[in-house]
Amino acid sequence: MPKPVSAAANVLDKVKGWRSYVEAKLGFRNHWYPTLMSSEVSEGAPVTFKLCGEKLLINRVDGKVFCVRDRCMHRGVNFSARPECYAKGTLTCWYHGWTYKWDTGELVGILTNPDSAQIGKHRLRTFPVEERKGIIFVFMGDMAPPPLAHDVPPNFLDDDMAIFGKRRMVNSNWRVGVENGFDSGHIWIHKNSILVIGNDLALPVGFAPLEGVATTRLVEDEDGPKGVYDLLGNAAMPVFESYLFGEKVAEGHFGSTRVADTISIWLPGVLKVDPWPQAGMIQFEWYVPADEGCHYYLQTLGKQVNNDAEHKAFEREFHDKWVALSLDGFNNDDVWAREAGEEFYKNDMGWIAERLYEPDIAIVEWRKFASKHNRGIQKPEHIYV
Amino acid sequence: MPKPVSAAANVLDKVKGWRSYVEAKLGFRNHWYPTLMSSEVSEGAPVTFKLCGEKLLINRVDGKVFCVRDRCMHRGVNFSARPECYAKGTLTCWYHGWTYKWDTGELVGILTNPDSAQIGKHRLRTFPVEERKGIIFVFMGDMAPPPLAHDVPPNFLDDDMAIFGKRRMVNSNWRVGVENGFDSGHIWIHKNSILVIGNDLALPVGFAPLEGVATTRLVEDEDGPKGVYDLLGNAAMPVFESYLFGEKVAEGHFGSTRVADTISIWLPGVLKVDPWPQAGMIQFEWYVPADEGCHYYLQTLGKQVNNDAEHKAFEREFHDKWVALSLDGFNNDDVWAREAGEEFYKNDMGWIAERLYEPDIAIVEWRKFASKHNRGIQKPEHIYV
Amino acid sequence: MPKPVSAAANVLDKVKGWRSYVEAKLGFRNHWYPTLMSSEVSEGAPVTFKLCGEKLLINRVDGKVFCVRDRCMHRGVNFSARPECYAKGTLTCWYHGWTYKWDTGELVGILTNPDSAQIGKHRLRTFPVEERKGIIFVFMGDMAPPPLAHDVPPNFLDDDMAIFGKRRMVNSNWRVGVENGFDSGHIWIHKNSILVIGNDLALPVGFAPLEGVATTRLVEDEDGPKGVYDLLGNAAMPVFESYLFGEKVAEGHFGSTRVADTISIWLPGVLKVDPWPQAGMIQFEWYVPADEGCHYYLQTLGKQVNNDAEHKAFEREFHDKWVALSLDGFNNDDVWAREAGEEFYKNDMGWIAERLYEPDIAIVEWRKFASKHNRGIQKPEHIYV
Repeated sequence: MPKPVSAAANVLDKVKGWRSYVEAKLGFRNHWYPTLMSSEVSEGAPVTFKLCGEKLLINRVDGKVFCVRDRCMHRGVNFSARPECYAKGTLTCWYHGWTYKWDTGELVGILTNPDSAQIGKHRLRTFPVEERKGIIFVFMGDMAPPPLAHDVPPNFLDDDMAIFGKRRMVNSNWRVGVENGFDSGHIWIHKNSILVIGNDLALPVGFAPLEGVATTRLVEDEDGPKGVYDLLGNAAMPVFESYLFGEKVAEGHFGSTRVADTISIWLPGVLKVDPWPQAGMIQFEWYVPADEGCHYYLQTLGKQVNNDAEHKAFEREFHDKWVALSLDGFNNDDVWAREAGEEFYKNDMGWIAERLYEPDIAIVEWRKFASKHNRGIQKPEHIYV
Repeated sequence: MPKPVSAAANVLDKVKGWRSYVEAKLGFRNHWYPTLMSSEVSEGAPVTFKLCGEKLLINRVDGKVFCVRDRCMHRGVNFSARPECYAKGTLTCWYHGWTYKWDTGELVGILTNPDSAQIGKHRLRTFPVEERKGIIFVFMGDMAPPPLAHDVPPNFLDDDMAIFGKRRMVNSNWRVGVENGFDSGHIWIHKNSILVIGNDLALPVGFAPLEGVATTRLVEDEDGPKGVYDLLGNAAMPVFESYLFGEKVAEGHFGSTRVADTISIWLPGVLKVDPWPQAGMIQFEWYVPADEGCHYYLQTLGKQVNNDAEHKAFEREFHDKWVALSLDGFNNDDVWAREAGEEFYKNDMGWIAERLYEPDIAIVEWRKFASKHNRGIQKPEHIYV
Repeated sequence: MPKPVSAAANVLDKVKGWRSYVEAKLGFRNHWYPTLMSSEVSEGAPVTFKLCGEKLLINRVDGKVFCVRDRCMHRGVNFSARPECYAKGTLTCWYHGWTYKWDTGELVGILTNPDSAQIGKHRLRTFPVEERKGIIFVFMGDMAPPPLAHDVPPNFLDDDMAIFGKRRMVNSNWRVGVENGFDSGHIWIHKNSILVIGNDLALPVGFAPLEGVATTRLVEDEDGPKGVYDLLGNAAMPVFESYLFGEKVAEGHFGSTRVADTISIWLPGVLKVDPWPQAGMIQFEWYVPADEGCHYYLQTLGKQVNNDAEHKAFEREFHDKWVALSLDGFNNDDVWAREAGEEFYKNDMGWIAERLYEPDIAIVEWRKFASKHNRGIQKPEHIYV
């Protein structure tokens, strides 16, 4: 049996209202997740990707992208160890020549025993794919997939929204990633960021929530993405100066550019920061479960463009400026903080040993919201079904 | 307590007829296994070897080879960390001078307390040894050992059979090794082997079993080795051309040399391929459990010789030609495949998640046969008895 | 939940009279342990140290040393990842600016939300500290600490006792360390030591206990350290020559300097060898649990001095001579032996599979004594309380 990765029973009994979030160590099931970038998948050149604990194989056939489980049904080896293809649209296992169709998963031939009664009787697990904005989205689940638009933040799929991004692996559970991103108090770690100073941003060191004002707004429409807005911009006083025993000990940056007015988190785990890192741009970033201890951090920047020239210009700007200054220069601190935070939550004790403060209300709202609206929990045994 | 390595109960309940095979993660008990080569054990120079999860120490005294557990009974350290010997035929522990006889295991002295009442009261675990064909066989068990001839394939011990071999460690369970070797369909992976082309072998890409013809023959005599013959040579059509959607996509090699007419697998896990890699030669190969995740792959080639000159000539041929061309050049693909197959069976889920096809009947027969005829199952707790 | 590190139930039921010793994998609770050397902790420069499975942070403020748990109460990150300090006597977490006092642990400010209701409501876990003889002792426990003098061997704290020492990490459980040190029979491993030969020590290869003579003496006074003396010096014949089958096979060193007349072991795990490594000097050495598989080996040498000049002279001698000749040259063998002994006791099977001999009586006495007199057992869950 796969080793259990879900939370210990005694922890689950203590988290009121967000039990399934604690159980979702491998992510949520029946959701769309981004995987590889379009540019990483060439025609007829399968690439492996680990999503929610499951090894996938992703390929492009006649321009269209397909995704199957990266494990032959016969003796369980990974196709990706030595991918073979003898006829367009098929995938042959290197071990005994079992051959499947990329689109349906159907076992259409066995090259070592052409008349086998098994042919036509098995279907390799396939996963629905949508390729949008240069990103390959995979639906990790069993049910008929909802529209991709239900699992990405508002505006991301807008026709005039140009998107560019980069992805890297982070050594923490995906939830530690989400909570780092959605956590307003964590801006303390960015106080010396070169982006803040170099780009003249207004960035406080923290927020003092106001009493009696709503700090979150939930979006629960049936027919659209589901997410939580952090309203701290209106519901809190920004803290620009910190004092200890009456002495000023730290201060934020009173830059002229106001950013991050609206911050929201969306199922299955996507942050939208608008505007960011400057007016007219939006950062959409995903924390995609690879396995229980790692997540892919997919950072994308979006900008509304009116024509191809603007699209190209933004592409150049993305590569020449924003990767170094913001996606690396600023967010590297977040990657570091998530990896530093992993140990405490790894064995689930952190969920009950943590001591929260006022700005964390937004995080707890997210936990409850995600527990209520997710379409299922990914479990270790799913990879054998 | 040692961590359990036997299969999960829910898997065991689902494998009909070969439950004890699934339990035998550490190998079978009360069988002879090959360990070191004779040339590796010099007079008075103990060498350690891990067999079925147990650390052994093997030494030669006056030419005869002995084997004991590599762990002092007193405080449990490995003798092999710093083997000491102060009188011929004895082994002294480096820590407190406990001194045992290699032949009986008797505690004959304690150099730090010469009059200890413990002397003569304990016996270090010893294991029966047979040295044949340049290989040191050890009986891992408790019962009176049957003849070595009961645990090696027919012909291996023939007086006129010259044997040469090599051993290496493979990162998979021993059963993944056995099944790779005995699996007729796996020849697909060898289709581009330099041995096949360079030595002009006839090698199909697979086999199509015929209906109504026995595909295996069991050898269950009381007084001899126990094994399973794969009869595919007669019970199947060799597949020399593979088609997909009516197009030829791959082909075997129509060489002039017919080999591998008879393939058989023997307890406790030895393959015999006759003839191989050319007429007049036989490959005997063992998959020896080291621990749950590793096995030693011992490859030997046998040839009938009539005199010393022929014996010497075969030895030269073995080293000059067959190691590079066949044992490495051909079987390296098998080593690679076994390591690629380990993940699926490691947690025992593979035994029930696999989907077999017709040629795999031989493998299932072997599983049942081994479950029926093994003399016991090695368990983690055995190393404390 | 933290993974259990205590012994398997079936082992515990079999160890008569020293069950809590077997349970104390992470050390004893409510005892003083040495941690860093004074010279390692400068003013305002926190250093991390792992004691009994707990990560500590140790700092010096206005000359006085303080110790807190190295984990912010808020989101559980280690302060030591990037220690911040904005006001003397405080420690600020790098993640959200939670700020604690080093002396009381009180949460005195949150720099990202200055008016948080959490301020003043939480106390970071602090641990009592005593700095003596150039060593920082920490009380790992919950109760009001007894005097440090109750947890160190006699004479260690004497006013005229000069102490110098060094510390290193050893890859074995702390108990394997203690038992190596207190074990009289282990001198067998030192028979070729350069210290013994170079310093002309009288060192036998073992001891033959006499019948009817007490081999240990227990010190159980309420108001002082608790320990066990090994009386083998009087209760045993030293073995200077070892024989096998009537032939002499090994011998000790008949040096002119008699040492190690009195050997004793003290709670929570400190050895005193007097005199050692020569007349007029004492070796005090600690085996300090870091986690279940590692201990710090703190070796100190003590010498009675009458004035500053003698103190300085001993310091020079310690560094110029004794570190290389004795602490390394002699005790390196012990470090090696402990690491070699870890495997057998790691899963607790060693405690019941070992076969002891007469000189081991002292070790068994220590196990019972420690089980009776310890003030508590450190458990994995303690780090969450």
